[in-house]
Amino acid sequence: MEKITLKVQGMSCGHCVSAIEGSVGKLAGVKSVKVNLNSGEVEVEFNSAEVNLSDIKEKIDDQGYDVE
Amino acid sequence: MEKITLKVQGMSCGHCVSAIEGSVGKLAGVKSVKVNLNSGEVEVEFNSAEVNLSDIKEKIDDQGYDVE
Repeated sequence: MEKITLKVQGMSCGHCVSAIEGSVGKLAGVKSVKVNLNSGEVEVEFNSAEVNLSDIKEKIDDQGYDVE
Repeated sequence: MEKITLKVQGMSCGHCVSAIEGSVGKLAGVKSVKVNLNSGEVEVEFNSAEVNLSDIKEKIDDQGYDVE
């Protein structure tokens, strides 16, 4: 299990939190997702044998946010 | 048919637009809803014989926004 903190631009409200936590959280291999609006950070705990970082970043990007 | 422009606090992104336009737009008697994020305004066209202003304001409030 790995844990990474991504810097994400454009998250502004509770709906953004739901959109990101919902979509990333549904990926097989992702154990937990936590969005922090104040810091603009998304913390993801995942199993790198099942899912890779680029898949996670792509999911966030697909929701319309920029991952730094 | 009446048309009113409400000042609403806390609308910040496309999800907020969808939440407000979706919920208010579903009220019987509401003909159109348009959210302007830049001005923080919600323009509603409605038939006052079918729906009253307090119902519209309540719907917006229910979504977690403050109507001035």
